[in-house]
Amino acid sequence: MLTTLNKALDTIHRLAAETVWSEGVTPMKIGDSGEFGFWPKGFSVGATAGNIRYSGRDDMMLIVSDSPASAAALFTTNLCCAAPVVLSRNHLQQSAASMRAIVCNSGNANAATGKQGMADAQAMADAVAEQLSIKPEEVLVASTGVIGQLLPMERVHAGIVALPATLQSNSVLGAVSAIMTTDTFPKFYAVDVALSSGTVRLCGIAKGSGMICPNMATMLGFLATDAAIAPELLQTLLSEANRKSFNAITVDGDTSTNDMVAMLASGAGAEVVAGSKDEALFSAALQSLMILLAKLIVIDGEGATKLVEITVKGAVSNEEAELAARTIANSSLVKTAIHGEDANWGRIIAAAGRSGARFNEDELELWFNEMPILKKGLIADFSEDEAAIILAQPSYSITLSLGNGSGSATLWSCDLSKEYVEINGSYRS
Amino acid sequence: MLTTLNKALDTIHRLAAETVWSEGVTPMKIGDSGEFGFWPKGFSVGATAGNIRYSGRDDMMLIVSDSPASAAALFTTNLCCAAPVVLSRNHLQQSAASMRAIVCNSGNANAATGKQGMADAQAMADAVAEQLSIKPEEVLVASTGVIGQLLPMERVHAGIVALPATLQSNSVLGAVSAIMTTDTFPKFYAVDVALSSGTVRLCGIAKGSGMICPNMATMLGFLATDAAIAPELLQTLLSEANRKSFNAITVDGDTSTNDMVAMLASGAGAEVVAGSKDEALFSAALQSLMILLAKLIVIDGEGATKLVEITVKGAVSNEEAELAARTIANSSLVKTAIHGEDANWGRIIAAAGRSGARFNEDELELWFNEMPILKKGLIADFSEDEAAIILAQPSYSITLSLGNGSGSATLWSCDLSKEYVEINGSYRS
Repeated sequence: MLTTLNKALDTIHRLAAETVWSEGVTPMKIGDSGEFGFWPKGFSVGATAGNIRYSGRDDMMLIVSDSPASAAALFTTNLCCAAPVVLSRNHLQQSAASMRAIVCNSGNANAATGKQGMADAQAMADAVAEQLSIKPEEVLVASTGVIGQLLPMERVHAGIVALPATLQSNSVLGAVSAIMTTDTFPKFYAVDVALSSGTVRLCGIAKGSGMICPNMATMLGFLATDAAIAPELLQTLLSEANRKSFNAITVDGDTSTNDMVAMLASGAGAEVVAGSKDEALFSAALQSLMILLAKLIVIDGEGATKLVEITVKGAVSNEEAELAARTIANSSLVKTAIHGEDANWGRIIAAAGRSGARFNEDELELWFNEMPILKKGLIADFSEDEAAIILAQPSYSITLSLGNGSGSATLWSCDLSKEYVEINGSYRS
Repeated sequence: MLTTLNKALDTIHRLAAETVWSEGVTPMKIGDSGEFGFWPKGFSVGATAGNIRYSGRDDMMLIVSDSPASAAALFTTNLCCAAPVVLSRNHLQQSAASMRAIVCNSGNANAATGKQGMADAQAMADAVAEQLSIKPEEVLVASTGVIGQLLPMERVHAGIVALPATLQSNSVLGAVSAIMTTDTFPKFYAVDVALSSGTVRLCGIAKGSGMICPNMATMLGFLATDAAIAPELLQTLLSEANRKSFNAITVDGDTSTNDMVAMLASGAGAEVVAGSKDEALFSAALQSLMILLAKLIVIDGEGATKLVEITVKGAVSNEEAELAARTIANSSLVKTAIHGEDANWGRIIAAAGRSGARFNEDELELWFNEMPILKKGLIADFSEDEAAIILAQPSYSITLSLGNGSGSATLWSCDLSKEYVEINGSYRS
């Protein structure tokens, strides 16, 4: 735990230092003794060992809001979505986005498990509701782990019975560690943001490390705030922030059956009113927090050695910019070139060329960080040595201008390494 | 040359033996001494060393039809298309698909080369026309190799001057070897097909080995027949065959700036009339030939160790079946699992689930060869040991039924290996 925590702190500190925080934001000081208790007012978290797949570690987590919280969530768009995803989507609707708890297990995804899987997810919500004396539809359920195996419900139930006694507000570390599967470090962060009527806190924990084994590497994000905010507005802001963060990272282009991002707002703190300046401040803070968590996911994984920010600008529309950026970011050829620290601009423009985004090749311009690589479609007079210095860094940016409009999009991607193949080629066996 | 030729013959013989040939088709016997002279009547081919990038080997090739031939072609859909692609597309139109020659160089793609690149491609056509006393617009030009460098036109011109003296009809080996870049073996095949008014021959040569360095690994296919066929019908049949062959293979999902498939029909042999049974026979033979060439491309490349036939059936439409098959075939997770010989069905259905093809998870059925892996969305009672035997084979099939209609599609893909990363990560440096 110490090693993974140190890796987490090193990485979080590096990313936080690079972040330009928006107005009113104070990032949390973390890492010193006792400084992990930054869960917002009105929430408690717990974790326990359910022995679902792992032994000797916690694999079940519970987040509880003292009172009904405004809730918002986003779920995987994969047609093969897991039972807990179906259940949680239903519960959010049934309870009119007023929720009390999130329960999550790791080690088993409860995906491709048919009717029994749905019954098991329901049983998890029922058990949590019974323990906390709340309604089952006030519970969100999430699972991550292997596909196609039924949950060991006796152990799951015992875990849920044990969870309430572990609830506390002193540290998020237990909860975030319990949802790790192939993650190599826990991912969490928090910021305070000063609104007109007081300061509110936003805290997030996440898991995901697609480079290792995405069957086990569902992307999960759980966020909490003490702000008072209507669920409709919360959903709008969460969706927008998600588009710019978790949906703007790509590890290998695959989408899990279990992906879920959920946010609870306890209302114990200052209010965020739609259309106010407070909304803009809160929204910007949420985006920064979620982008930081998303970058942590890209950085994680034994296969990944680079975090590359890919921006496409000058597109006909933001949608076409994203199309081009995503095609570049997912190209195996581009990703191997990034791994090999090779200034292979030909692969980048070839990926853009097949993306569907419209442009004239003679207008293309390309930069690595600030260094021009292509000008007006032709190779710029750049120094291969200076390019090599940029490409050797653990993180840098690639910017492609299509010269065809004002649409733009930014994604974060990583490299494709031999370790990725090694790990993914031998995972199940 | 001997080693690569042996590899070619071994592979071609294996694939030819697996092929179920359509009515009237006689596959060529190849490989014994002197048995490479199967170019159809009315054509000659030549090759020479232009020293464009390589030394000590031929890197320029010329195919000539004795008289104006019906022509058809397909070009890359990449927006960044190379100068020879633009030129050849124009020439095909200007000459009303009546062509006399195809010239091709390897080592330099003449892509991302701007106005000078267009002038150079034109100069290649002009020089060939001058040598052969034909019109420049009767010449198709193709290039494959590195992107972003101007052609060494003095050497290219000298090569074109030298080519006519090398023209002969005894062997295709020189021509097919001259267009290899990172290919590890030459790709060629020919069949005879008995039509109502006589037997015609179809011969094809191809290059491509996407697993190695697709900057250098443009997919090129050149086909010739002595059939008498109108260019419009030839284009229709070539497009259809291309859809089922070269467009139905995926190595890493990237599309080159220089891809081109061109076919010439000399008219020296029997006629193929639109709507006749001969058309059906000719079309089926062409498809078989091109599928064999396409499979050779998938098999090639140091990174690839598996040839996997991926069929999706039971889709709402053929288009949705192809969408699902392509997403599965291009998934890095599926490809690494294939490499690791891992019966990882979860990755396959997760890829289908994010493809956009519509289905109900409870209706999914999956087979490796004939072995059921999933039945009605749940894991079938299969033997992991028996599955392991299938997955250890160099080629096998994966069939996914969506249970939602009658649309189907078949693609051929390969695995993703550490060698792929090794080679692509270190190519330019």
